Amino acid sequence: MISMEPCRRKLKVLLIGFGNVGRQLAKILTRERDHFPGLSPLELKFVAIIGRSKGSLVNQDKGIDLHKALEEVENHGTFDPANPDRTDMTGLEAAASLDYDVLIELSTLSIENRGEPAISHIRTALARGSHAISANKGPVAFALKDLQDLAHMNNCSFLYETTVMDGAPVFKMARCSLKGCTIKGIDGILNSTTNYILTRMEEGQSLEGAVKEAQDIGVAEADPSHDLEGWDPAAKISVLANSLMGASITPYEVDRTGITHLKVEDVRQASISGKKLKLLCRAWREAGMVKASVKVEEIPALHHYASVTGGGAVIRIETDLMGPILITQEDPTLYDTAYGVLSDLMTLTCGY
Amino acid sequence: MISMEPCRRKLKVLLIGFGNVGRQLAKILTRERDHFPGLSPLELKFVAIIGRSKGSLVNQDKGIDLHKALEEVENHGTFDPANPDRTDMTGLEAAASLDYDVLIELSTLSIENRGEPAISHIRTALARGSHAISANKGPVAFALKDLQDLAHMNNCSFLYETTVMDGAPVFKMARCSLKGCTIKGIDGILNSTTNYILTRMEEGQSLEGAVKEAQDIGVAEADPSHDLEGWDPAAKISVLANSLMGASITPYEVDRTGITHLKVEDVRQASISGKKLKLLCRAWREAGMVKASVKVEEIPALHHYASVTGGGAVIRIETDLMGPILITQEDPTLYDTAYGVLSDLMTLTCGY
Repeated sequence: MISMEPCRRKLKVLLIGFGNVGRQLAKILTRERDHFPGLSPLELKFVAIIGRSKGSLVNQDKGIDLHKALEEVENHGTFDPANPDRTDMTGLEAAASLDYDVLIELSTLSIENRGEPAISHIRTALARGSHAISANKGPVAFALKDLQDLAHMNNCSFLYETTVMDGAPVFKMARCSLKGCTIKGIDGILNSTTNYILTRMEEGQSLEGAVKEAQDIGVAEADPSHDLEGWDPAAKISVLANSLMGASITPYEVDRTGITHLKVEDVRQASISGKKLKLLCRAWREAGMVKASVKVEEIPALHHYASVTGGGAVIRIETDLMGPILITQEDPTLYDTAYGVLSDLMTLTCGY
Repeated sequence: MISMEPCRRKLKVLLIGFGNVGRQLAKILTRERDHFPGLSPLELKFVAIIGRSKGSLVNQDKGIDLHKALEEVENHGTFDPANPDRTDMTGLEAAASLDYDVLIELSTLSIENRGEPAISHIRTALARGSHAISANKGPVAFALKDLQDLAHMNNCSFLYETTVMDGAPVFKMARCSLKGCTIKGIDGILNSTTNYILTRMEEGQSLEGAVKEAQDIGVAEADPSHDLEGWDPAAKISVLANSLMGASITPYEVDRTGITHLKVEDVRQASISGKKLKLLCRAWREAGMVKASVKVEEIPALHHYASVTGGGAVIRIETDLMGPILITQEDPTLYDTAYGVLSDLMTLTCGY
């Protein structure tokens, strides 16, 4: 356990989203809680869970029975219609009307809706002085400055560690460990779906075949275009540029090409000449502006990036005061994603 | 710049050690200061510099003219004997008698003296309620718990970011970004001298030849046994185990072999079979204890560690809540080392 100081502060939580990450979070906080002694400072009372297809629950008085909620969804695919906590409340209604200390926003990124409705949920929370934690990249990619100003004005926090590389050290690391540095540039491999597909294509699989495989093992979505066209990494490099380089860019301003144009011959040809093709994100300073791109680039076989295969991810940060540093995530699972949220909850509970 | 909150707090500094790192620090804080806007919160007054071969200076009233001190050493190899600030004060006398807010300890690690006299300097500072920053591994490898207790009791901080991988994110990263995790194990490549020598041996150079080359370019000391026998990495893995895994081990408890037994044929034989030899540090939990080792190990050519060549370094951290994360330092220079100290000064000034 890292934190040495005793800390404990009960937090009332409003959870929006109960998909894979939400359920993993619930699992860690209930059934598996005893395996993780470092989480002992966390005392959470879930006042509502607002799901999409699974229905929603609210219980301001006693708090929701997380264990039971999890079992219902695991057994029936939705919350039990007979559960007395069932509600028709929307996320926005819950954010505006319930009594909570922190909103956890786990809904899915919508590029088309420019981060909405997650941005409105978070804006509503912060405007009331409640903290907000977002695993959804949209609010940071489309509205970071606004939300930060709002948080500052209302003396509360907006945290979003999970948005890039799950719970691996990125944003709190930069705050605590790069203080005084100016970040000159960032690059990295940030989309595990395309990285998995490129790895399989190196091994001779076609793009279509690799996509199908990725879907079969749950690495790619039913509609994989969001990843294949580079929108997910474009959102991530926007988040990094906005948060760490003071930019105000959205995924629409990122110079973006995905991997849909790649043929297996391209990947194998690179391989034969001792290179690997990777979908690289970059952000850099140019003429007083921050620019960003998402493009397939050739990587020498002995470069660290060549060893980031399958679902791994890496970012490389260049600063004025230090040589480049790299953060690499090996084989992330849903635990890593859930930890991003837990890590933000620990910060709210115990400070930095 | 990472830190958003305005912060400014004048710190009176006692600096012990004015070797490469101390002079680099002085250079950044004087001549090059304007290049680093992120350092603007730092307002430092150096009340004394206690050197070894270069002499010592004290000026409690106005503070030492850092620019002039630097020039004197650059021009004459020592502080000017005519400098009115010259003093015969020892480090311990200075730590006990001067008025300062923070002691910066930049002296060299002494394994034989089990971290002394640096430990006594730091103990003296903390006992008076002054903060201490150590770039010397000794105090953390031999006396962390004592010094932490003392700091806690006297409401001041003991920081040591520079002790492992210079200013690259390690200790403050763990505090801020792994909160709630229990660290199960740590491994890494942490000694640049032996890593440089192993890289050259892969290229066909003999051990003796590679050592000589490393000395010629300033990577190895005149007496390289400290590195070659693995004492430096043993100190580093002790620091990591003590700080991040709650251990109380010293370099003497580390199961340590260096690289002195290696022949160029060993390294090339590994190379032929697609492997690389690296001097790896490890710390792990076993039967309720933390154990540590420093040993030459074979690394597969496609492993990330194989791409850490020359002066680079890497650590890999395994936790209970997340898959392994790696922090890699590319091509560090003296800036990276000096930044470790600046980073701790920024923390004292602006908080985490």
